[in-house]
Amino acid sequence: MLSDIEISRSTPLRPISDVATAIGLHSDEIQTHGQHKAKISLKALKRLENKKTGKLIVVTAITPTPLGEGKTVTAIGLAQGLFKVGQSVMTCIRQPSMGPVFGVKGGAAGGGYSQVAPMEELNLHLTGDIHAVTVAHNLASAAIDARIYHEQRKGYDDFEARTGLSALRIDTDSIVWKRVIDHNDRALRKVTVGINDEGKTINGYEREDGFDISAASELMAVLALASDLKDLRQRIGKIVIGYNLEGKAVTTEDLGVAGAMTVSMREAIEPTMMQTLEGIPTLIHAGPFANIAHGNSSIIADNIATKLADFTVTEGGFGSDMGFEKACNIKAQASDKAPDCAVIVATLRGLKANSGLYSLKPGQPIPDSMYEKDSAALEAGFANLKWHIENVTKYGVPAVVAINRFPQDTDEELLQLKSMVEALPYSVEVAVCEAFAKGGAGAVELANKVVEQCHNTPAQFTPLYRMNQPLEEKIMAVSEIGYGAASVTLSDKAQSQLAQYKALGFDNLAICMAKTPMSISTDGSVKGAPSQFDVPIRELRLCAGAGFIYALCGNVMTMPGLPDKPAFMNLDIDEDGNITGLS
Amino acid sequence: MLSDIEISRSTPLRPISDVATAIGLHSDEIQTHGQHKAKISLKALKRLENKKTGKLIVVTAITPTPLGEGKTVTAIGLAQGLFKVGQSVMTCIRQPSMGPVFGVKGGAAGGGYSQVAPMEELNLHLTGDIHAVTVAHNLASAAIDARIYHEQRKGYDDFEARTGLSALRIDTDSIVWKRVIDHNDRALRKVTVGINDEGKTINGYEREDGFDISAASELMAVLALASDLKDLRQRIGKIVIGYNLEGKAVTTEDLGVAGAMTVSMREAIEPTMMQTLEGIPTLIHAGPFANIAHGNSSIIADNIATKLADFTVTEGGFGSDMGFEKACNIKAQASDKAPDCAVIVATLRGLKANSGLYSLKPGQPIPDSMYEKDSAALEAGFANLKWHIENVTKYGVPAVVAINRFPQDTDEELLQLKSMVEALPYSVEVAVCEAFAKGGAGAVELANKVVEQCHNTPAQFTPLYRMNQPLEEKIMAVSEIGYGAASVTLSDKAQSQLAQYKALGFDNLAICMAKTPMSISTDGSVKGAPSQFDVPIRELRLCAGAGFIYALCGNVMTMPGLPDKPAFMNLDIDEDGNITGLS
Repeated sequence: MLSDIEISRSTPLRPISDVATAIGLHSDEIQTHGQHKAKISLKALKRLENKKTGKLIVVTAITPTPLGEGKTVTAIGLAQGLFKVGQSVMTCIRQPSMGPVFGVKGGAAGGGYSQVAPMEELNLHLTGDIHAVTVAHNLASAAIDARIYHEQRKGYDDFEARTGLSALRIDTDSIVWKRVIDHNDRALRKVTVGINDEGKTINGYEREDGFDISAASELMAVLALASDLKDLRQRIGKIVIGYNLEGKAVTTEDLGVAGAMTVSMREAIEPTMMQTLEGIPTLIHAGPFANIAHGNSSIIADNIATKLADFTVTEGGFGSDMGFEKACNIKAQASDKAPDCAVIVATLRGLKANSGLYSLKPGQPIPDSMYEKDSAALEAGFANLKWHIENVTKYGVPAVVAINRFPQDTDEELLQLKSMVEALPYSVEVAVCEAFAKGGAGAVELANKVVEQCHNTPAQFTPLYRMNQPLEEKIMAVSEIGYGAASVTLSDKAQSQLAQYKALGFDNLAICMAKTPMSISTDGSVKGAPSQFDVPIRELRLCAGAGFIYALCGNVMTMPGLPDKPAFMNLDIDEDGNITGLS
Repeated sequence: MLSDIEISRSTPLRPISDVATAIGLHSDEIQTHGQHKAKISLKALKRLENKKTGKLIVVTAITPTPLGEGKTVTAIGLAQGLFKVGQSVMTCIRQPSMGPVFGVKGGAAGGGYSQVAPMEELNLHLTGDIHAVTVAHNLASAAIDARIYHEQRKGYDDFEARTGLSALRIDTDSIVWKRVIDHNDRALRKVTVGINDEGKTINGYEREDGFDISAASELMAVLALASDLKDLRQRIGKIVIGYNLEGKAVTTEDLGVAGAMTVSMREAIEPTMMQTLEGIPTLIHAGPFANIAHGNSSIIADNIATKLADFTVTEGGFGSDMGFEKACNIKAQASDKAPDCAVIVATLRGLKANSGLYSLKPGQPIPDSMYEKDSAALEAGFANLKWHIENVTKYGVPAVVAINRFPQDTDEELLQLKSMVEALPYSVEVAVCEAFAKGGAGAVELANKVVEQCHNTPAQFTPLYRMNQPLEEKIMAVSEIGYGAASVTLSDKAQSQLAQYKALGFDNLAICMAKTPMSISTDGSVKGAPSQFDVPIRELRLCAGAGFIYALCGNVMTMPGLPDKPAFMNLDIDEDGNITGLS
C-alpha cells in the first residue's frame, strides 16, 4: 500500500469553491485561499437560520493506546461511507497544532484512503487561525506587563493623571494569564520575565510566568465555543487575567485590550473548508486538545455543517471520558445542539492493550504476539469498550461501535469482538470499518448502522450536570457519575480557589477536566475499566470567557516537550517545494 | 478630508487576480487569498528570467522626526504618479509588524489617497508570513533546549547510543539564538527559561534567554535576502545558534531542524500581492526593521516586479543612513540589482525639526509655530537634507528630492526649499509631492522627475565596501565614509567577537548597523548633519544565514515596549466585522 502522503498527492482534488458551492454555500460566502482551502463566512449561518438541522455524529473511542486507534481515519471514512450510501454529509474536525506535528505525532489529517487533503496544508499554518489565537493571547500578556510597569513606575496617581485611565492596581502575584506558543517547548513551562540589568528598570518588573501550548489557551476554547462575532467579543472581554490588590477580578476589558484581541481573531472565527480524498466538504475550526482543554472543534463549524448537510461527522479527542464528555457537558450545553449518535472506535490491538497484558510505548514496535489470536486479552480488554458504550449511553446518545480494522487483524477475532458487542444488553450497533485501506467503500457497513441508529433510536440527551448546580457538584458529577470514581479529593489550593470563584460569582460555569487520556482514571498506568479510584484535583483555573473552570488532575502538563529525536528531523523540502518526511 | 480608513473603505478595489494578470502574471502563478490578496508563485521568476529588467527606485528620507515624513505615502503616491504619466509600474513594500500596529504607530499602509488597501488586511496577519518566520525561529529555539536537555539527562554516550545521533555538546553559555515574538513586549527582553520546581528536572536546565521582536529575527533577513527556495534552505542551514564545548559553531543543520524551518516558511517565500487605492500592483514581502535589521523588502519581490514593470518603487526604512545604506551595501550586493534612482522624502516640518530649534515628541501636538514661516529653522535644518543628498550621491545613485506637502505648508516656504535644493552643485532634481491629498495626481511632477533622472543620469552604483574586505574595514567604511563619523570604538566584547568571527571564517560577511534612526550619529538627540562623532559598537551578532554581522551601536533595543496608552486601546470590532480605531 502507498504511504499516506503518496495517496494524498496522487488523488485529484476538486477546486474548493466547487466543493463549497456543491454543498449549498453561496459564492459570496466563500473566500478561497489557494485552490484547496476556503474561509466560510458567518453570513451563511444567518442565511440558513431557518433551515432544518441535520444529524450530528460524534466520533469517540475506547481508551487510546500510544499508537492511536484511528479516530480521525474513522470519522473521515464514515463521512465518505455516508456519501456512498446516498446521504448528504460534511465533516468538522479540529486544526492540528504544529507542536505535535513537529514533535512526536506527525500529522493529524487521518490516513490511508481516509484523509483530509492536502495534508501538508492542513498540518502547517492552514489559514493562520492558531497564529491569530497566539497573537491575541500574547497581546493580552504584553498588555498586562506594560500596564503594571507604567502604573508602578509612575505611581497610581500620576499614571491616572497622565493617561486619564483608572489604575488597575494589579496584584502581580495573582496573575493567572500565562503566555502561549504553538510549539512543544518544555523550557518555557516555567520562566521568569521582566529581568533587568543591575540598577535598571527598563524591562519592567520581574515575575514568574510560563508558556502553555496555544491549544490550551482559553482563547482557543473561546473560539471553539463562540456562536458568532458578537459572542466572541463578549467572551473575550470576560476573561480574567488576575486580581487587583483588593482581590477583585481584572479582565481583558479592564485592560482595554479585548477589542484588539477580537480584531486579531476576526478571520479566525470563520471555519476553513477543505475536502477529504473523496471530496467530502470538511470544516477545520479551532484546535483545543482533549486532555488539557475541551477537545472538540467549533460550535460555529457544526452549526454551519448541520444546516448544509443531513449528516455532520465530528470527533471529540481521545476516549469517551475525554472529548465526548466535554462534547456533551460543555459544548452541547453551550450550543443547544446535542449529539444524535456516538461512534466508538475500537481496535483489536487497542482492546488487547487495555487488558493490561501488553505494554506499548510510542516509537517502539508492536509485539507480534498482539496480532496473533489472544481471546483472553481481547476479553479482558473488552471491559474497556463496554465501559465506553455504557458511558455514551449515560448521556442518552445511541452508540455504534466501529471496529477499525488493521491489515493483520483476523476475521475470527473481528467476529468474536462483534458478537461480544452484540451480546450486550444495550441497543448498540457494531460494524467493522476498513476506511484506512478502502476509503468510503470500507465504511459502508458503518455508515448504514449510523443511519439506522439515527432513524431508530432518537437521542434523549441528558448532560451529567446543569450549569446552575454548584461547582463541587459538577466536579463530582463528572468524576463519579462520569468516570465512575469513588471519590474526589481537592488539594488545599483547589479548595481555596473553589471558594474564591464562588465568592466572585463564577459558580455557574462548566467544568473542564484536565487529565491523562491513557486511563479512565487519573493514573495513566491503570488500564481497562477501573473502579474504586480517587480523582485528585491539584488546581482549578478560571476561564470566565470560555465559560468553564479547568480542574487539573494529577500531573497533567499544559506544555508538551520534544523527544530526543523529534519528528522535525525527518522534514525537509526540495527546491520545487515538495515536502519530505510528513506523514 | 476623510480619514485614512474612510478613504480606504470607500474606494472600490479590483479583484486581485485581475490586477495580477493585468501586469503580466499567468493565472497559475497567482493563488488568491480572498478578493484582495494573492500569493505570487516563484514560477514567475523562472518564466521571466530572460525578460528585460526595469528600473528600481528606492524611496528614502531625511532623518525622520517621531511623526514620520510620509515615506510610504510618497512611495505609493509616486507609483500612482508614474502610472498617471503612462509608465508600467509596481511597488514593493515590507509587511508591517503587528507589534507597532498594536503598540504605538498604528498601521503602515501609507495614508490619504496613497494607501495600500484594504489597510486592515495589510496591517493584521496578511497571509501569515511573519507568523511563519516566528514559528520557524522558535522551532529552532525549542530544538536547542530539547537537545541540551536530552544530551545532559542521558549523558553524551547514552544519548548517542539511544538515538544514533552525534552529541552536539552545546556550551549552554554560548547560545546566541534568542526566541522571537511579533509583539512589543518589554517583559520578554530578558527572561530565564527552563526553571524547575525544586528537586525536579522535567523542564530542562535553567538558562538566561530573551525575546526579540520577529522583525529582528535572522530568519526575517534571510527571507528578505534569499533568491529562491533552494537559497532559502541553504541560508537557513547556515544559521549559527551557538557553540560547542570546543568553540566550534553549531548550526540549525547540526540540530536537524533546518529542513523543518524551511518547510514552515515555504509559503512565506512567495510575496503577497495587494493593490494601491489607484490599482497599482503592490508586492508585500518580509518586514525587517531598518534600525535593528536591514530594513528593506525582499529581493524576490524586487526581482519579480522589475521583470513585470518598467518601474518598481520600493522603500528603505528611515533616513538614507539607515535603510538606503543597507539597500546598497547589503541588499544590492546580494541581489546584483542596484537602485537606479533614489527619492529622498523631506518635509518642511521635518527639516525645521532637524534644525534643533524645535522639540517634537510622538503623541504630543506639533507646535503651531512650526507651520509659520521660519527661514532660519528651514535653513539650519536644510543641512540634514543636503547630507542625505550627498549620501545618496556617494553610491553613484541619482537623486530626486520629494517635498511631501502638508496642508499647512505655504507655497513660499516650499519654493524656498525647492530653490535651495536646485542651488546645490549636484545633478539632483526636486518636486513637491501632494500624494496624500491627491493620490497619483499629486505626484505627477515627482514621477516626471524620476523618469527624467533615470533617463538622463544612469546610475554608476558603487557600494561603500566589498565583501572580501576585512570586517573592521567594512564597519569603518559604513561609519566613516557612510555616516561621516570621526572614529569607531569597539567595546571589549565586540573586539573579542570580531576576533572570534574572523577565526571561524566569517570575515567575508556584510555589516548590518543597528543604531538609532533619529540621528545620523548614534546619539538620537543630535540633529542636523553632525560631524566629529564617534560610533561606539557595543556588541556584534553573527547572522551567517542572512550573510551579515549586526553591529549594535549604543543602546538600540531589539524588543520595543508598549507605551502607557497603547494603540490597541482604540481598536475594536462590531458584530458585522467592521474594525474601528485603525489608522
